[in-house]
Amino acid sequence: MIKGLTRDGLGNLKNLETHIILAAKNDIDVVDTDGNALRELIEAKGIEGAKQFLQENQVQIGAIQFPVDWRNSDDAFYNDLPDLLEDAKIAKAFGCKIFNTFFMPSTDQDPLQHLMKLTNRIKICAQMIKGYGCNIALEFVGPYHMRKLFKNEFIWDLPTTLEWIDMIGEPNVGVLLDSIHWYTSGGKIEDITAIDPAKIAYVHINDGPELPRKEILDNGRLYPGEGIIDLVGFLKALKDVGYAGVVSQEVLTEKEPVESSEILAERSGQAMAEVFVKAGLQ
Amino acid sequence: MIKGLTRDGLGNLKNLETHIILAAKNDIDVVDTDGNALRELIEAKGIEGAKQFLQENQVQIGAIQFPVDWRNSDDAFYNDLPDLLEDAKIAKAFGCKIFNTFFMPSTDQDPLQHLMKLTNRIKICAQMIKGYGCNIALEFVGPYHMRKLFKNEFIWDLPTTLEWIDMIGEPNVGVLLDSIHWYTSGGKIEDITAIDPAKIAYVHINDGPELPRKEILDNGRLYPGEGIIDLVGFLKALKDVGYAGVVSQEVLTEKEPVESSEILAERSGQAMAEVFVKAGLQ
Amino acid sequence: MIKGLTRDGLGNLKNLETHIILAAKNDIDVVDTDGNALRELIEAKGIEGAKQFLQENQVQIGAIQFPVDWRNSDDAFYNDLPDLLEDAKIAKAFGCKIFNTFFMPSTDQDPLQHLMKLTNRIKICAQMIKGYGCNIALEFVGPYHMRKLFKNEFIWDLPTTLEWIDMIGEPNVGVLLDSIHWYTSGGKIEDITAIDPAKIAYVHINDGPELPRKEILDNGRLYPGEGIIDLVGFLKALKDVGYAGVVSQEVLTEKEPVESSEILAERSGQAMAEVFVKAGLQ
Amino acid sequence: MIKGLTRDGLGNLKNLETHIILAAKNDIDVVDTDGNALRELIEAKGIEGAKQFLQENQVQIGAIQFPVDWRNSDDAFYNDLPDLLEDAKIAKAFGCKIFNTFFMPSTDQDPLQHLMKLTNRIKICAQMIKGYGCNIALEFVGPYHMRKLFKNEFIWDLPTTLEWIDMIGEPNVGVLLDSIHWYTSGGKIEDITAIDPAKIAYVHINDGPELPRKEILDNGRLYPGEGIIDLVGFLKALKDVGYAGVVSQEVLTEKEPVESSEILAERSGQAMAEVFVKAGLQ
Repeated sequence: MIKGLTRDGLGNLKNLETHIILAAKNDIDVVDTDGNALRELIEAKGIEGAKQFLQENQVQIGAIQFPVDWRNSDDAFYNDLPDLLEDAKIAKAFGCKIFNTFFMPSTDQDPLQHLMKLTNRIKICAQMIKGYGCNIALEFVGPYHMRKLFKNEFIWDLPTTLEWIDMIGEPNVGVLLDSIHWYTSGGKIEDITAIDPAKIAYVHINDGPELPRKEILDNGRLYPGEGIIDLVGFLKALKDVGYAGVVSQEVLTEKEPVESSEILAERSGQAMAEVFVKAGLQ
Repeated sequence: MIKGLTRDGLGNLKNLETHIILAAKNDIDVVDTDGNALRELIEAKGIEGAKQFLQENQVQIGAIQFPVDWRNSDDAFYNDLPDLLEDAKIAKAFGCKIFNTFFMPSTDQDPLQHLMKLTNRIKICAQMIKGYGCNIALEFVGPYHMRKLFKNEFIWDLPTTLEWIDMIGEPNVGVLLDSIHWYTSGGKIEDITAIDPAKIAYVHINDGPELPRKEILDNGRLYPGEGIIDLVGFLKALKDVGYAGVVSQEVLTEKEPVESSEILAERSGQAMAEVFVKAGLQ
Repeated sequence: MIKGLTRDGLGNLKNLETHIILAAKNDIDVVDTDGNALRELIEAKGIEGAKQFLQENQVQIGAIQFPVDWRNSDDAFYNDLPDLLEDAKIAKAFGCKIFNTFFMPSTDQDPLQHLMKLTNRIKICAQMIKGYGCNIALEFVGPYHMRKLFKNEFIWDLPTTLEWIDMIGEPNVGVLLDSIHWYTSGGKIEDITAIDPAKIAYVHINDGPELPRKEILDNGRLYPGEGIIDLVGFLKALKDVGYAGVVSQEVLTEKEPVESSEILAERSGQAMAEVFVKAGLQ
Repeated sequence: MIKGLTRDGLGNLKNLETHIILAAKNDIDVVDTDGNALRELIEAKGIEGAKQFLQENQVQIGAIQFPVDWRNSDDAFYNDLPDLLEDAKIAKAFGCKIFNTFFMPSTDQDPLQHLMKLTNRIKICAQMIKGYGCNIALEFVGPYHMRKLFKNEFIWDLPTTLEWIDMIGEPNVGVLLDSIHWYTSGGKIEDITAIDPAKIAYVHINDGPELPRKEILDNGRLYPGEGIIDLVGFLKALKDVGYAGVVSQEVLTEKEPVESSEILAERSGQAMAEVFVKAGLQ
């Protein structure tokens, strides 16, 4: 498996350049970013310079944030589609094959109509980026308070997300499996070992505090190994099933950490290394 | 538009042969039946004899009942798929292009999972019969008491059914629009005139008693023109939108009518003729 | 059926405003144009003014030229996709549901790879414009010299185009049936009466000179009724099959006609009126 | 990677029971068979007995032969579809997820129409078996004499097969990569390392004699390591790309080998073991 770092958990990160350097220093293989950060890097170094910089640091772009607002109005959705083409072009230039996006586990819309709308939109986007070799990683959101945020529950666990991906029927759409969403949604190890690895597009890793499952908050995450989630079992299950992709740390916290990005990246690198070793991954 | 007769409203109909003769006598163009009745007719007359009999009576097969239990278990569904192939072969032999089926407006299942399951199954069936030139006409069920029959509401009106058909995305799946379901679901003339006629696979016609909309029962239907539904407006809207297919009478009643099929067929023919004339269709 | 006018056959047409006025004067219901002409009209009159102008003239926008170069390189294709979104927005604003495009009947590419590439691209575009209520009308090109223009023959007749549309599998992709392509590809009346009308997205009408079929040139077309194509049979077959959409005149000529647009539009209107009357359409 | 054995290369194999025993004895993990052989095993041992027998031998069912004649007439195709449902049920019962099938590299049909027909059929089958968790592994056939067997060339190499699978667009359709087809079609290591491993459904391994590429015959195969194909490079490339599925020996020969199945299985097991070791797989 490949170690990755999102920006969440690195504090006030200056820019993508710093992100890459910190990843390299702490034995991380890929960074997750967005189209704008990549464009900024290209402005600073040129496209070839940017690629060379990544190569020198032996870091790759793991995933790019999906630039399309696909969960709200039709207007918002269609207005963003040209951005998707732009970002897919950049993704291809950097050899990045994954766009990450999540969907809320509750909605004020009628859930059936919401599902139909979202399905249509994801299909459109999947088709549009297929030619660039890009995939969409769909992240379900597990925490109980998020399921209650809007009037009606929507999809919020792994098995139902996989059923949805199956219905979407586009080969380049898979699940983004995040340990805290898996845990808070009542996920079991067997839910992971039952997956066809081709359906797992990306993995996020983070930990949760010692609280009843229903009280864990989406932005109350801990660094891997600092909480109570069985991350070793989580990673072993992914290994057993044949997943060989990225496992990227994403630590959302209510308040931004006070430590410097350097210190946070070191802490992240150590946390990742430890949990990988315990899971027999390195 | 083409006039059709289902078996519902014709009392204790002996067999398909009688069905065809009664249609012919009462100026009806097509009959709706099922694979078994067609097989029985073929046994009696041979395939060529059956076709000739239809031709002599100037009656065609309008639609065949979908032979697949697609609304319950996976086992039931897959067990029925060979029957679909059999019936599609027969449909093709008779030049019939439509399979009719309905879905319940409520379910004991989780509605989102129900939607995903049903979508997958309809896609499979649509693909399987495509090569035979066959289409699936999906009928939503409007009466209020049916929406409350099971724990959770599912899809029960025209606009949402069309959204579903759009998501299913198979060119040979359209809506079966039934006047009583349209009326009881609160349908408006504008809902019909907004449809792309290519999405209307079939039409059922029948009337409803003078009761509040929510009290009309699924099996409390009347012959066209005997009730309070604006069937003239209904047909005119279909004409305006360019629909040129079948409009088939289907009168479900709690108790089977006591009159003979001959009398009921005459009553049906007259009812259909009158409402067609009033709508300017003939 | 609805009478339409493309720009081909109207000589040096000043702009869309003139196009609309000439259509109105000559009893034509719709005009076929492109996104740029519509934008120019909007600049001149505002969006509401443009709509009002159409309404006053009782003319509608029948079809818009597909703004995507989908027959060449991947780069060209992807660069044009944002334009498709722009034009779909405009199409929707004007209630226009059709994008017209053609494909060449020969290619220098490997035909199998060409088919796969073009299929993928049309699917992407069909998905992108579906939410705007728009359809793609795919026009095959029949003239013999065009089949020999490039190294390998591709698709050039109605039955194979329909097979392709079937394989594309998008409900909003249909055939654009042009009388000269039908004639030069050896089309028969029975090829038309065999079509499901839902698969016909648009119709072009024009005539061909008294030459052997293989010698008729793509840009050697005549006004309807001035040549040897059985346009009355063509239109009757479309009527029989239930087609109720647009039949739009498109007269491509090697040299631009010397007459004024006014005279050419009158000639077009008369030609269209005559052939419609002969086919029993009005 | 997982070691597999087809029946080709094992001589006059008595039945599936023997197939399983010989696999077990020679350190092979899975056997490739067909629905009939599985039914025979079930008749002999009962379904639970059959599963237990496999478990005791620590052998699994790797792939089942696709029971559908999908390359010829519509009738043949549709007649076989019920068999596919039967075999998918059996596959699921044994935890087997792969149906193997090949397509000829030449055809007497028009290649474009052939491609469209085959695409439609594979889509139908892929949809039908999806609910059983089954996938289709599509095998291209490389030898030059096979490309010339019929009038027109069809698809016969890896990159074009992948384009086709992409166009088919069903997540449960992938490529069956066979070393002799890869070699004779002019395949390079880079063609393998360029693949998304999720697109590789199955792998066949065998060797070819020291002949010019164009002279190697489809039924002139050798056991792995006995010929000139760079099988170590082949397997290393598969490993590099992340393929973790089955590599199954398939040695088609003009005449059935004279040795006993026991001796041939031993020879196969040794050949597989050696090439796996050389590729660093064990």
